[in-house]
Amino acid sequence: MAVYTHLGAEELSALISQYDVGALVSAKGIAEGVSNSNWLIETTGPEGTGARYILTMYERRIELSDLPYFLGLLDHLSEKGCPVPRTIHDRDGSAYRMKRGKAVALIEFLPGVSPTQPSPEQAGAVGRVLADMHLASRDFARSRTNTMSFPDNLVLLERCGADRLARIDPGLPSMLGPARAAAELDLSRLPHASIHADLFPDNVLMLGEQVTGLIDFYFACTGSMALDLATTHAAWCFDRENRYRADLGAALIAGYESVRPLGAQERELLPEIAKGAALRFVASRAEDWLDTPDDALVTRKDPMQFVARWHVYDDLGEKLFDRT
Amino acid sequence: MAVYTHLGAEELSALISQYDVGALVSAKGIAEGVSNSNWLIETTGPEGTGARYILTMYERRIELSDLPYFLGLLDHLSEKGCPVPRTIHDRDGSAYRMKRGKAVALIEFLPGVSPTQPSPEQAGAVGRVLADMHLASRDFARSRTNTMSFPDNLVLLERCGADRLARIDPGLPSMLGPARAAAELDLSRLPHASIHADLFPDNVLMLGEQVTGLIDFYFACTGSMALDLATTHAAWCFDRENRYRADLGAALIAGYESVRPLGAQERELLPEIAKGAALRFVASRAEDWLDTPDDALVTRKDPMQFVARWHVYDDLGEKLFDRT
Repeated sequence: MAVYTHLGAEELSALISQYDVGALVSAKGIAEGVSNSNWLIETTGPEGTGARYILTMYERRIELSDLPYFLGLLDHLSEKGCPVPRTIHDRDGSAYRMKRGKAVALIEFLPGVSPTQPSPEQAGAVGRVLADMHLASRDFARSRTNTMSFPDNLVLLERCGADRLARIDPGLPSMLGPARAAAELDLSRLPHASIHADLFPDNVLMLGEQVTGLIDFYFACTGSMALDLATTHAAWCFDRENRYRADLGAALIAGYESVRPLGAQERELLPEIAKGAALRFVASRAEDWLDTPDDALVTRKDPMQFVARWHVYDDLGEKLFDRT
Repeated sequence: MAVYTHLGAEELSALISQYDVGALVSAKGIAEGVSNSNWLIETTGPEGTGARYILTMYERRIELSDLPYFLGLLDHLSEKGCPVPRTIHDRDGSAYRMKRGKAVALIEFLPGVSPTQPSPEQAGAVGRVLADMHLASRDFARSRTNTMSFPDNLVLLERCGADRLARIDPGLPSMLGPARAAAELDLSRLPHASIHADLFPDNVLMLGEQVTGLIDFYFACTGSMALDLATTHAAWCFDRENRYRADLGAALIAGYESVRPLGAQERELLPEIAKGAALRFVASRAEDWLDTPDDALVTRKDPMQFVARWHVYDDLGEKLFDRT
């Protein structure tokens, strides 16, 4: 949550002039994104009636070679009517430009706010849009390997090591066994598409019960659609104390299946995939925790929140599908 | 530059519903303000045609008892046609509300971007608007004491002490003598008004050569208008290496005097006041430097930049008025 680079008004104006979006009217650095700097930009608009955009500068963690996949996916989904922001191409047709040695992209601004206490109606709407997105992405021509797959999570946790994990919390090393089990799950035989892979409420814009935007596709990859549903489930269906909200879980899955019913194999594996999805955040948060100095001003996210969610999934098993 | 408090969409919606501005459409935390959290808010607008606002939560350094002065001044100046943001009052007529024990205010959004490399035309425009503001503020009924007056700056520097100042830079303790001299300047006999007192380019929004907004009035106070001009001069008329930009200085003063010519006493004292204005930022930056741990992620502003500017003013003397 930061603006890492200061771009002055003159630089921003010059950059904006490379796009057919009118002249710069306003630019505010916004506190979104952990691996990039973002500005909410207002211009006079291509028609002179005003327009807003998000300008993103890719700072770290994001490989330049991945940008054609991320930005191309936005264009592909947007053309098919999914509520994702279009990439604005410059006058030469490029989806991104270089500025001070870093890539920058101009992206459509979408209205909406992210719910912090979602309702079942909102969870159902997210399930439907997620399934829509999966169906729309199946013929997207590019592919990208999931760098946070279950085997990757195991590697991360093993690299942290039981001793250092125990220093974060004594309950953390017990996740190494489950991470080994998850790494052995074979998701390759499940139906694949381009998936979001990080669809927390923060990454969904809504107006009331309508989804107006899915954003922040910087973990998107080619992967199992059931994995994306399970990740969204792990991100949405718990309260602040990490207690399971069965009403949200039922609404999310019902919403998803109203558009794209899960296959038999997906249903069979989903309880295990959900455990693996929880471990994905245990692993990345544990690594971030150990990489962040104790006295840094950054708020570290507690991996134990997702250990708690893993236990919920372990207890639920097939009851994950209960329509409470 | 931060958002200190996380306000969720539901909380923001509830807050916005206390104002006659329509429903919440978008909210982005923006990276502005060092003593408050700010969101750029979009709503359906009082007429249903859309509107934008800045929502400010006062976090620290700002006394609640000062808010009626700061927010009332915005309303007073705005009514008189100065380019400052109006305060939006809630349905009960209050200029601010309390949220989680902190004051929040909804403020008009103004277009424009802050120049980082101002032109003489832009400096001239700022001079004219500053003088307009002074004339408009003279009949503002409230008053507020300048908490960063020249005697206050001396107290700050003496509290730091020569030893600790020398640890920041060996050239810093030499500013104690000049700070004593500035503290003895009698500004009380100069014409007063409500002044901005911190009009850096960051706090001015412009479209081309037009000033569209003066913002961030949280140092505003009752004070000498010549002091405000000198502070603006010290903030605008130097390049990145702190070399004097005589063209900007001449344009700023000429712009100011085209609206409000300085009196004889003001002209006589301005070279000394400019030195005191530079010391104001030497003092506050030195204090912030010593208060900020070496390893904090916050960028400390170097007090030596304004030591360099003090030396420029000391050399310039009466030549401050040269029309280069």
